[in-house]
Amino acid sequence: MTVEHMKWWGWGREGVGFHFEDKPAFAPFVEHAVGLDLHSAPAVATPDFADIDVPASQAPDALLGELRGAIGEEHVVVDDLDRVVHTYGKSIRDLIRVRAGILPRIPDVVAYPGDEDDVTRIVQVASAANAVLIPFGGGSNIAGSLEPTATETRPIISVDMGRMRLLVDIDEPAQIARIQAGALGPDLEAQLNAKGWTLGHFPDSFTHSTLGGWVATRSSGMQSDKYGDIAEMTRGLRVVRPDGTLVIRPMPNASTGPSVREMVLGSEGRLGIITEVSVQVHRVPEERVIHAYFFPRWNVALGAMQAIAASDAAPSITRVSDARETAFSMSTSKVRTGTSRILAEEVLPRIMKSKGWDLEDICMSFIGYEGSPAHVRRQRAAVEKIVKAYGGMGVGTGPGVLYDQKKFDTPYLRDFLLDRGAVADVSETVAPWSRLLELYDATVAAANAAYDEIGQPGWIMCHLSHSYHSGACLYFTFAWVAGGDEIAEYETVKASIQQSFVDHGGAISHHHGVGFEHAPWLEQDISAEGVAVMRGLFASSDPQRILNPGAIVAD
Amino acid sequence: MTVEHMKWWGWGREGVGFHFEDKPAFAPFVEHAVGLDLHSAPAVATPDFADIDVPASQAPDALLGELRGAIGEEHVVVDDLDRVVHTYGKSIRDLIRVRAGILPRIPDVVAYPGDEDDVTRIVQVASAANAVLIPFGGGSNIAGSLEPTATETRPIISVDMGRMRLLVDIDEPAQIARIQAGALGPDLEAQLNAKGWTLGHFPDSFTHSTLGGWVATRSSGMQSDKYGDIAEMTRGLRVVRPDGTLVIRPMPNASTGPSVREMVLGSEGRLGIITEVSVQVHRVPEERVIHAYFFPRWNVALGAMQAIAASDAAPSITRVSDARETAFSMSTSKVRTGTSRILAEEVLPRIMKSKGWDLEDICMSFIGYEGSPAHVRRQRAAVEKIVKAYGGMGVGTGPGVLYDQKKFDTPYLRDFLLDRGAVADVSETVAPWSRLLELYDATVAAANAAYDEIGQPGWIMCHLSHSYHSGACLYFTFAWVAGGDEIAEYETVKASIQQSFVDHGGAISHHHGVGFEHAPWLEQDISAEGVAVMRGLFASSDPQRILNPGAIVAD
Repeated sequence: MTVEHMKWWGWGREGVGFHFEDKPAFAPFVEHAVGLDLHSAPAVATPDFADIDVPASQAPDALLGELRGAIGEEHVVVDDLDRVVHTYGKSIRDLIRVRAGILPRIPDVVAYPGDEDDVTRIVQVASAANAVLIPFGGGSNIAGSLEPTATETRPIISVDMGRMRLLVDIDEPAQIARIQAGALGPDLEAQLNAKGWTLGHFPDSFTHSTLGGWVATRSSGMQSDKYGDIAEMTRGLRVVRPDGTLVIRPMPNASTGPSVREMVLGSEGRLGIITEVSVQVHRVPEERVIHAYFFPRWNVALGAMQAIAASDAAPSITRVSDARETAFSMSTSKVRTGTSRILAEEVLPRIMKSKGWDLEDICMSFIGYEGSPAHVRRQRAAVEKIVKAYGGMGVGTGPGVLYDQKKFDTPYLRDFLLDRGAVADVSETVAPWSRLLELYDATVAAANAAYDEIGQPGWIMCHLSHSYHSGACLYFTFAWVAGGDEIAEYETVKASIQQSFVDHGGAISHHHGVGFEHAPWLEQDISAEGVAVMRGLFASSDPQRILNPGAIVAD
Repeated sequence: MTVEHMKWWGWGREGVGFHFEDKPAFAPFVEHAVGLDLHSAPAVATPDFADIDVPASQAPDALLGELRGAIGEEHVVVDDLDRVVHTYGKSIRDLIRVRAGILPRIPDVVAYPGDEDDVTRIVQVASAANAVLIPFGGGSNIAGSLEPTATETRPIISVDMGRMRLLVDIDEPAQIARIQAGALGPDLEAQLNAKGWTLGHFPDSFTHSTLGGWVATRSSGMQSDKYGDIAEMTRGLRVVRPDGTLVIRPMPNASTGPSVREMVLGSEGRLGIITEVSVQVHRVPEERVIHAYFFPRWNVALGAMQAIAASDAAPSITRVSDARETAFSMSTSKVRTGTSRILAEEVLPRIMKSKGWDLEDICMSFIGYEGSPAHVRRQRAAVEKIVKAYGGMGVGTGPGVLYDQKKFDTPYLRDFLLDRGAVADVSETVAPWSRLLELYDATVAAANAAYDEIGQPGWIMCHLSHSYHSGACLYFTFAWVAGGDEIAEYETVKASIQQSFVDHGGAISHHHGVGFEHAPWLEQDISAEGVAVMRGLFASSDPQRILNPGAIVAD
């Protein structure tokens, strides 16, 4: 089984990228947003790996020999490209560094276990050799969870789980599937779908992230309103540790002390290597549909989402973009012709204006429904009653179909922009409904203040997704025209945004984890004693400090 | 503010108890079940506290002086009755021991903090004096979570949270209420109801258990199908620890490493003293109704509950009793007259017989619906379609009204039986749907084998409650006629049941916690490495070992 990786210098598959030539509104949008003229901006050439100065492997021969003996020669790789691919995730900071060949410390060897016994042998070899273990799924992380500590002097082994991607079995009455941790989203859904089941977990990274990675970072997918986040889906776990395998049997719930299952969720490799996850699965729904709605203004749209969450209605997706993200989304449409053009560009604006809406303020929303046709009909009716009460309007399923088709393509845009001198990334938070508007306003202001500070034109846009009884996730995308020191600029912008989150009732991360990137704000989020408890957990559980040391909390 | 306690020797309020004289079918039922004739069985007199030999307080005067200085003289109590009340929870083992004056180690002093600052001072005084702290809510625990280690040589302080029972505030848009941890169920619901809100958490212990206790043991209430268990309701926490206060801000969800919120849930005092909980609350529903249904047999009833869980229907309660518990419930009816008598005793049996049902096998189910009248109507229609498909029959709301009225009275029955020479207690588990029938059969067989082993006639009955996507809770009630050494008999029966749980895919506890009672099976449930991780958490978080040491896992 071959393990494919993303581009060493960017997101996704070789040969796939974002194009703007077929999207007539996109270049004008970018010029309006940050003053960058895509037609004249010079695009850098694809980075050449030969230009990168790769640190030599520091793995002692004895360690390599033992790893080869443990899992087979062909599964122990020391070549430069493989080690660079396993150094970082795909945050914009990672992309900037890897393209520039900034590689202060990279894994010394990549091990590809084929089963749990292989993982056990790798962990035992590492423990005996005092080598560090960093588990690697799809490599899509944007919080710095995969990055070795720059000062690490011991050998570092990246454990790539990509050969372990089988659906082991399905307990049909319990609706629980046992799946190997290295299964990528498409692998896993294909194997489940073939038997009529779905996990229902569709994060933006779906095509390039794994079940084990989702668990290790407490991921959430687009349909979390129906299926829950990965923490709720995860019922059982197997985690290989130096002294043995931690086994959490699949349970619907339990009252057995502090939940060890919940300690593994979000642990980013610090409690061991997750080899298998038992997840709750659902029958593929008879019907699945996404409807689009427009609201006149952001505060009205937030009110509607809150009212839906407080109601008896049970949609599968609730999502609404602010006016800037709405304008962005519209700018990525391909050329429209015929009736579609007339509807989108003439009829719809005319209706909105007749309602007294300012087209600069409109917010586009996607709401999804899944289940039996009767269930879908009822939930939609319940939601649309609320949309109407808030002065919103439905525009049918057309935009939702487009959204569904291109939902996994957005990460490619960052490389496109970076090629042309603009830096973009995302930060997401979650807060109670009572704080969302304040948090939103403050975060937009904080980003703009940061752009002023770095003296570069910038942009920030946002959507609400993942609604809960008590609040929701706000997901911000921010971009600016690079001034020269992209890393320093990034740190200024990112820090402003993160600080705004904690200052206004939000968490430092809703579904991207902590890694090194968000760790500086953890104490402000969960308090000094919260960090102390977590640090104690890691220290007591891994006295040798070989399990991804430094991630989440510095030792 | 006066803190009232339950009877020192039994459940509930002085002067309240179970009576059988007004329940004509009860004495015949007990005679049939375990051969005990309630009319001739001599009832022991109410225990006299003067007969109990209470160990003297070992609290040094200096410690008492510091505590008095910290929280006020009147809130530091060393009298014998108070210290005995704070020694145990209310498991049958606790009742047997306290009635017999078996008190190997009891708290040396009871402290009643009035606010979080008081708790902080108590914890600091205890830490400086190397004294043990055991938090006490309502004292209803049945897993041994409150019991001091018999060999403890340091002073033991029971921290009674009963003065801290205020609703602090409600964040209405976020539907989050901040409530002090010492609030008893009725306190808390009354304060919320007065403002139109409800928490929706109604465990059997509701009248005598506290919010902090629910969090500390991962409690579940009867309406968990709608409102979730306490872990889902708990969004924020304040926990006083020797080095400071752990503060988890109220969040709908988060991806900030292993969840410290989930570490406090179920921690039974081992991570500190919970002073305040932010819980998600709901508007008091417009309509709330419980319907009763009958099924011809247990396996059919389980199938129906599973089908309801897998469907789009969203009832608030799903509960079904096995044939033995159904017979028990019917035996506790008061004298029926008129139409009610004719319906229950003539019409209903005739209909069941006409369907070919064996009246010995019938299983009674309660299914609850809450929300707007339209929502209730739709959910009920969806559920009743499934009930019908499984051959069940609805009998309206009459039995549900009775159930709702007497749902908190069952614990009084244990004292009534113990007074008359029969020993009864409960054990509950949770397992995937695929294992429930096997687990049920095995557990009934295990209990009966245990009764044979102790040579006493015994009884075991069960209900399913708390349905999840992947499984459900089975709640067993067991009783036998005491043979002379009730504690040894209890240990035999209890151990058989717990072992059956872990042997057949179940957890050692669904909502009663671990304490000392379930700790011997923890490793079989969550694996040796799971116990090691948890032990490490406690050891690193409390190096002085003063926070309820020994509960959940022995050190």
